[in-house]
Amino acid sequence: MVQQEIGLDWEEDFQRLTPSQFFRKNKQMLGFTGKIRSLTIVFHELITNSFDAAEESGILPDIDIELKRIDKEHYILRHKDNGPGIPEEYVMQVYCMMFAGSKFRNIQSRGQQGLGCSGCVLLSQMTTGKPARVISCYKDGDEIKGVKMKFQMDVENNRGILMEREDYECGETGVCIELQFKDVSYSLAEQGAFEYIRRTMIGNPHARITFRDPSGHKYIFKRAANIVPVQPKEVLPHPKGVSADDLMTMAKNTDSRRYKSMMTSSMSRMSNKRVDEIAAETGIDMNKRPKDMTFQEAEAIVHCFKKMKFMAPPTDGLIPIGSEQIEKGMKQILKPEFVTTITRKPVTYAGGVSFIIEAGLAYGGEAGRIVNEQRKSEIMRFANRVPLTFDAGSCAITEALKSIDWKRYGLKDLDNTPLTLFVNIISTQVPYLSTGKQSVSPEPEIVHEIRQATMKLARKLQKHLRAKKAAKEKEKRSKVFEEYVPVIIEEAAKLGETGVPEYQEVLAKVTKRALAELLGEKVDDDETEEEELDAIIMEEVDEHGRVVEDNNSSLDNFKEDEEEELDE
Amino acid sequence: MVQQEIGLDWEEDFQRLTPSQFFRKNKQMLGFTGKIRSLTIVFHELITNSFDAAEESGILPDIDIELKRIDKEHYILRHKDNGPGIPEEYVMQVYCMMFAGSKFRNIQSRGQQGLGCSGCVLLSQMTTGKPARVISCYKDGDEIKGVKMKFQMDVENNRGILMEREDYECGETGVCIELQFKDVSYSLAEQGAFEYIRRTMIGNPHARITFRDPSGHKYIFKRAANIVPVQPKEVLPHPKGVSADDLMTMAKNTDSRRYKSMMTSSMSRMSNKRVDEIAAETGIDMNKRPKDMTFQEAEAIVHCFKKMKFMAPPTDGLIPIGSEQIEKGMKQILKPEFVTTITRKPVTYAGGVSFIIEAGLAYGGEAGRIVNEQRKSEIMRFANRVPLTFDAGSCAITEALKSIDWKRYGLKDLDNTPLTLFVNIISTQVPYLSTGKQSVSPEPEIVHEIRQATMKLARKLQKHLRAKKAAKEKEKRSKVFEEYVPVIIEEAAKLGETGVPEYQEVLAKVTKRALAELLGEKVDDDETEEEELDAIIMEEVDEHGRVVEDNNSSLDNFKEDEEEELDE
Repeated sequence: MVQQEIGLDWEEDFQRLTPSQFFRKNKQMLGFTGKIRSLTIVFHELITNSFDAAEESGILPDIDIELKRIDKEHYILRHKDNGPGIPEEYVMQVYCMMFAGSKFRNIQSRGQQGLGCSGCVLLSQMTTGKPARVISCYKDGDEIKGVKMKFQMDVENNRGILMEREDYECGETGVCIELQFKDVSYSLAEQGAFEYIRRTMIGNPHARITFRDPSGHKYIFKRAANIVPVQPKEVLPHPKGVSADDLMTMAKNTDSRRYKSMMTSSMSRMSNKRVDEIAAETGIDMNKRPKDMTFQEAEAIVHCFKKMKFMAPPTDGLIPIGSEQIEKGMKQILKPEFVTTITRKPVTYAGGVSFIIEAGLAYGGEAGRIVNEQRKSEIMRFANRVPLTFDAGSCAITEALKSIDWKRYGLKDLDNTPLTLFVNIISTQVPYLSTGKQSVSPEPEIVHEIRQATMKLARKLQKHLRAKKAAKEKEKRSKVFEEYVPVIIEEAAKLGETGVPEYQEVLAKVTKRALAELLGEKVDDDETEEEELDAIIMEEVDEHGRVVEDNNSSLDNFKEDEEEELDE
Repeated sequence: MVQQEIGLDWEEDFQRLTPSQFFRKNKQMLGFTGKIRSLTIVFHELITNSFDAAEESGILPDIDIELKRIDKEHYILRHKDNGPGIPEEYVMQVYCMMFAGSKFRNIQSRGQQGLGCSGCVLLSQMTTGKPARVISCYKDGDEIKGVKMKFQMDVENNRGILMEREDYECGETGVCIELQFKDVSYSLAEQGAFEYIRRTMIGNPHARITFRDPSGHKYIFKRAANIVPVQPKEVLPHPKGVSADDLMTMAKNTDSRRYKSMMTSSMSRMSNKRVDEIAAETGIDMNKRPKDMTFQEAEAIVHCFKKMKFMAPPTDGLIPIGSEQIEKGMKQILKPEFVTTITRKPVTYAGGVSFIIEAGLAYGGEAGRIVNEQRKSEIMRFANRVPLTFDAGSCAITEALKSIDWKRYGLKDLDNTPLTLFVNIISTQVPYLSTGKQSVSPEPEIVHEIRQATMKLARKLQKHLRAKKAAKEKEKRSKVFEEYVPVIIEEAAKLGETGVPEYQEVLAKVTKRALAELLGEKVDDDETEEEELDAIIMEEVDEHGRVVEDNNSSLDNFKEDEEEELDE
């Protein structure tokens, strides 16, 4: 008896939580920490879901967001998209069921975890007790059906409770959700909701967002490109990225009747010939039924994968934004004096997961961020087109950009330069460091690719800045010409005691030439000056104290330079 | 038709995952990242669970761990405790069901999330495909029952699948679990499993751990204290820490029939008188049935809480380790030359969550860590007696210790000092920064308490070091005496042309005195010297460039100094 009093009362004390109950107790795991961050995460979840849905259906995303302030830290958010809509029977599953969603496939998409939308509804309910209101218009055969629903989350059972429902007349597909939030805060800070939208537009120039902020001001972020991004294909896992446990799960879920067909149909780069090689190497009978696969066999097969050479994973699963689109996005939002972009070729990390690095650099205009009335440089990190707003410190992108010796590219004081650096990593499996998916693990291959991409952009900026400087000097010289030559001619005439000649026409020609140069037309003797500048650069010393070698502006030479770096 | 092909196939693509499936895909969320860290997290989960269980039943924890290496990065772990055991019907729920456990009460315990044990079984299964083997011996009335089980986790259904079961004859209660792991690594590094045990023993001197490492070496970490820690009581939530959503959940789950009784029985510091005040303030009828509570009412009540003054939360829910116990633990493990410890009074953060800071400082002996054959200082962070091993950077403990001006306490080069700093935060609600529960949020009140505790310890170390220095000088002086006095006497005798007197006995007395001083006995004229040293300290300048004021060794004076700091 005494023992029972001090010990655990199993029946009383042992509890089983639903995922919703768990996350109600641990909302920081969903990224809901802090008033500003919480609201930004809500924007993030709703926008990424709308984008994914629209693009999957080949629709150019068009989102309409309205944030109304009801009271201090109390807001109503209305978020409307033009996607394919959600069939009525799935609406409450999407918005009220944790761990449910369509994002668990091996496909490049913004969402991955099936938590986001339900998390927003949970936060709304926890802070205001108000129900969610959703209008969904979706195709049912050739018809467009519409439904208007009001529901709450039943946290104890991880599902929705319908409160009201009516048919809704609609012409086009799409979803509109209305949620209320308290204890959140709208901010123009770098980590606030407005900046999140701005960055989203740079990474998604094919989208259109209309945003009415709490002060009633309406921002229209126009579409900079009219093409729906090619829809990424679902990619089969590459053998190099598969574990024994993965293989067991494949064997459990396959429709194939033999190991052989299971393997060729469940993984990429896996031909009958490769399966035969594996059979020879491991001695495993590949005609057995997948359901009978043992963990030992799975381990032997995976061990064999590790020793084999495979073609890199297919890259049609990876759809970059594209240099041209990034440029459009940056021009639209930043109106810069100079912009340059790059999309690298697909490569792999961790032995078999392919990824693509894209980068853009904008200088001048509205590039950079205004801090204390001064324009500073800013870094915009993206993964699969989604802006990464928090936890910058340990991110591969931050690490790569910090490791670059910017002085080498003529940027003496990077921090105080009106510069926006954009980096996007595209992968079916972005190696996020944290559960909030806000920073990318600094895998060596990823850091290398980011460095290479950014250094190329920096080199181009350097050329631009040099040309600008040279033009300025020319302008100065021509000004001297224009102002002093008449004086000299007149004084010379006086000294020579002759009349002043008709010099205006000749002088105009010379200054016109100077003007043309100013406007960027190439003039021969420019080259000499550039080479001189190069020569100066050549003697600069890099961060390791070595004299920086000549990296002439030709791309081929630069490539050699890259490879040298690789060997370090 | 075409639309359907490019759009989402809801029936096919929409999936619902169990918590186990979710964490199989996201094992980094359980802390399983990296080979060394993964194994440390396994040790952490099993040890903390055993400790919690034993203490809840008033048992002094005695754990027996054996880690056998089968192959490179392939281990068998056997973990046996002397706790109360787990009744047979709960064994597979504890080890195979995510989000299930007894840790969801408002009680100071090491675990909080009901994920740990199942996470270990999941990792074992994912990396080896091997089942878990458990022997559980538990009390059933007056009888001790025993069962031996072999089971797997059914990830698709978030439960266990029993493979074998037999009765087991046992004399005492306890649980023994055997798991296999691959792709993990045993390491002696600071973040490795061995160091985790060592630190655990400092925070839990009442425990005993026997550990046989992969090389077969057996370590016995002896119990330094024979008292089971007082079991913390479950504390009712304090009104200042309750949200409207919490109040709604209380109202939903209460047995009370009126708001009034529901409130007094669900929260601490909530008397009938307080409820009447709230009724008067809000106009809410406190005789209504809790099931009828609206969110608006809950909000009004919580709003009222915020404006009211309440007594601080009761602190009998907080059980610190205690200064004496920490000292025992540090002496046992570090065998230091000098040790000092402190337990501060309970205070609150965030308006209503109480916590206690405890700290210890060990100097010399085996304190600190050997890095490149040199002893360096080390920081041991704990929360509710559990060592925090990762993510030190942003932790309140790291921040507080770094902010201290160590030079002020005579430590010119802290890094290269053989010093161990121990800090433990006790709270029913430790504000962890990350999901892996490895760092504490730097709340200002917490940082302040850690600083105060540590500065007191540093002051004591300073006194010790001064005394030691003084003793050394005395020893030097007495050595001079011993060596030169005979020579002087003999030479003087020669000069005076007399015989050498019997000086040996007198000299021995003098040197004996010097020896005694060396051993720490107080001698009067010591004081003068200490004061001189104090005078020197007085003129030191602190990190803000101000002359550091006299903080004489009296505790009261030091307290004034503290309060000044608070005002800064």
